[in-house]
Amino acid sequence: MARSFDTVLIANRGEIAVRIIRACREAGLKTVQAYSSADADTLPVRMADEAVLIGGPKPAESYLNTGALLQAAAQAGAGAVHPGYGFLSENADFADAVVAAGLVYIGPQAEIIRMMGDKVRARQCAKQAGVPVIPGSEGVVSTEAEALAVAAEIGYPVLIKAAAGGGGRGMRVAQDASELRDKLAGAMNEAQAAFGSREVYLEKFLERIRHIEVQVAGDGNEVIHLGDRDCSIQRRHQKLLEEGPAVALDHALQEEIRLSARTLAASIGYRNVGTVEFIVEPRSRQFYFIEMNTRIQVEHPVTELLTGVDLVKMQLAIAAGLPLSVRQEDVRLHGHAIELRINAENPAKGFIPCAGRITEFAMPSGPGVRVDTHAYAGYELPPYYDSLLAKLLVWGRDREEALDRLRRALDEARIEGIATTLAFHRQLLREGDFLRNDTHTRFIKEHMYGKHPMRHLL
Amino acid sequence: MARSFDTVLIANRGEIAVRIIRACREAGLKTVQAYSSADADTLPVRMADEAVLIGGPKPAESYLNTGALLQAAAQAGAGAVHPGYGFLSENADFADAVVAAGLVYIGPQAEIIRMMGDKVRARQCAKQAGVPVIPGSEGVVSTEAEALAVAAEIGYPVLIKAAAGGGGRGMRVAQDASELRDKLAGAMNEAQAAFGSREVYLEKFLERIRHIEVQVAGDGNEVIHLGDRDCSIQRRHQKLLEEGPAVALDHALQEEIRLSARTLAASIGYRNVGTVEFIVEPRSRQFYFIEMNTRIQVEHPVTELLTGVDLVKMQLAIAAGLPLSVRQEDVRLHGHAIELRINAENPAKGFIPCAGRITEFAMPSGPGVRVDTHAYAGYELPPYYDSLLAKLLVWGRDREEALDRLRRALDEARIEGIATTLAFHRQLLREGDFLRNDTHTRFIKEHMYGKHPMRHLL
Repeated sequence: MARSFDTVLIANRGEIAVRIIRACREAGLKTVQAYSSADADTLPVRMADEAVLIGGPKPAESYLNTGALLQAAAQAGAGAVHPGYGFLSENADFADAVVAAGLVYIGPQAEIIRMMGDKVRARQCAKQAGVPVIPGSEGVVSTEAEALAVAAEIGYPVLIKAAAGGGGRGMRVAQDASELRDKLAGAMNEAQAAFGSREVYLEKFLERIRHIEVQVAGDGNEVIHLGDRDCSIQRRHQKLLEEGPAVALDHALQEEIRLSARTLAASIGYRNVGTVEFIVEPRSRQFYFIEMNTRIQVEHPVTELLTGVDLVKMQLAIAAGLPLSVRQEDVRLHGHAIELRINAENPAKGFIPCAGRITEFAMPSGPGVRVDTHAYAGYELPPYYDSLLAKLLVWGRDREEALDRLRRALDEARIEGIATTLAFHRQLLREGDFLRNDTHTRFIKEHMYGKHPMRHLL
Repeated sequence: MARSFDTVLIANRGEIAVRIIRACREAGLKTVQAYSSADADTLPVRMADEAVLIGGPKPAESYLNTGALLQAAAQAGAGAVHPGYGFLSENADFADAVVAAGLVYIGPQAEIIRMMGDKVRARQCAKQAGVPVIPGSEGVVSTEAEALAVAAEIGYPVLIKAAAGGGGRGMRVAQDASELRDKLAGAMNEAQAAFGSREVYLEKFLERIRHIEVQVAGDGNEVIHLGDRDCSIQRRHQKLLEEGPAVALDHALQEEIRLSARTLAASIGYRNVGTVEFIVEPRSRQFYFIEMNTRIQVEHPVTELLTGVDLVKMQLAIAAGLPLSVRQEDVRLHGHAIELRINAENPAKGFIPCAGRITEFAMPSGPGVRVDTHAYAGYELPPYYDSLLAKLLVWGRDREEALDRLRRALDEARIEGIATTLAFHRQLLREGDFLRNDTHTRFIKEHMYGKHPMRHLL
């Protein structure tokens, strides 16, 4: 059931818009870049075959504006819409609206987005597929009494999470019943403000854990996995460095986690590329499903370097109704890849985001280096959007060569005019525990900024 | 027998100097850049840990000046010398002088350079190893009578080549005895002028041939091959595009050629990375050794993309006396890679070299793209050296994906201020026979510039 389209509307901005334009161009598809008035003079607008202004600088006026995006698609004659990541990429209503407008949505079925976007339903789905989940409330909790009963059962410490949340917002840790009482109302109010729903759920809080995720792809018929990524280097649940394969785990455990992800995606007839996220307690070899991202992921190039598969072109092919071009037995992971997120944030000031004009922008190149970016010398960074400026990736035959290359690449990188996370990454490469791959999700807070005057922000 | 050094003198310039600096940095070695007065304000000088002025702009004053190079090494405390390609990289006397100065030469034994640099001895060496050579004079010819006798035996057309030559200089084709008489004296005079020796030899001239070369590496003990490259897109014996593997040949023929190259290199106890070049007549499935380059090759990154092996770091390890880090059975070729040479030459004017200032220099990036260059916006190209500005490489899962990516990458590339071969490469990507991989070494002349007013230059 081929769904034919020859022009793709890009309903996103920044580096992922550039990435999608490249994939479309290689696939012989035309591109229409939807852009806000703040992004008129940006690289994706210049690179795309056509560009349509969709509204003002605020996301609600443009990249979150379904009506304006669909009008742009109609105006430019686009037959398909790519949502990128962030913005409307996991909004089931948007996917429905795209399809209702007679266009191809480059992503999964809206119902799948809806289900996986609801943490409680996603958890049920994982349990049904036999994938381990973190001990916690079976469904949302709405009262303090309920919360206390659940916590007593699973044991403290517990994590309070917004049912509709993401990216770490609305999360709180309670060490005992007294803390749970103190923090519950605040978490519910924050959830209401951020996501329009007071519902929270509770989980056992695990320490010294790794964040491991598995790249999957499905055509609605077959589902494959494309290996894993270790994303334990995080600051307040925001990833700063991702690498793969997850060599900190033994091979048998890696394979078990990969197969779990594949099983889960297959159980829902998944269609698109996607990521199944787990937390792993390496000591106990326990792993638990946490969520599934039903879109292309920021760190997808790590997997591209390891497998040679172009995941964005794969999305285009799946959306066009083609069967997967790669069989599970043909997926081979070669070497080791690391991605750094170069964000316009000041690590010395609690990673506060910066805006302004980039006066110098020199990125490394040569063997084993890949850079995905929309930035350049002279780029004026608008204050309205996320702070990701560039993704710097290296590949090596093993983790050691990748680290050698990363050190060399960081020596070559230079960005002037605004503060970036380059300084953080250079410091990270001097941390012995990181070099030995002895990390966990609170590594940055505990190792690197333990005495930092702004450690409360980390 | 480890030969220890911690600092490397780079006796070269341009992109290969940048490439060597990157390899040294990843290997934890310090670098000293030797530079001519014309290259004072260049990227390798800025990138290296230290830089030493070795002389005036003319190559004889600097990059061919053994005394100045050795003095620079002594002054900076370098323990090893990397010659790059071109300049002194295949000069056995230079290798001898480096070793006599107590330094490690990052290249093969001087005697091997000497032998392979002499076409007649190299041919004998190949024959002894059982590697096919082109029918021709067994040794040099010095008189017309001798040449006529040899040509009568091997059959016309014949090729006249300078015994000490290279890069196509001094070569002439004679279709019959009358042409041979006409061209012999000119070829001898040109050989005398260019190489200081009148000696020439004759070969059977083959048509519709491909230039196929095999990357080898040896540690003086083991020798491996790392697959082949097809370099048939040439202009006057200068390569403009290289790709690998040589998929125009069937797999059995590829393997036979690769094993021949390995056998040849093993027969001389080769130590260093090197390239064994062949011409292949695809119709007859005949292949013939033409020469061996005992140094790193311009197009080595094609092999790096296919195998994941860093060939310059491999050179450093071999020179340090380490055994090869890769066994033959571990060499796997993944996908397809293509390299374009972006030269400062005007394709519309017979590829005449250009000098001047680059006002804009935008290179592509993103998935499957690698760029090796020493150029940047503002770079003032000196008129004294070769015209190579940048090497643009793409990798794809197969040749088709590599070509899609190349088209996309060329769309993104922009160089202003001087003429380059970018325009040529864009035209090449519209040639159906090239896209179908139906090429040969005279493809450019016959297909692309058949009616060109300057076709005599092609």
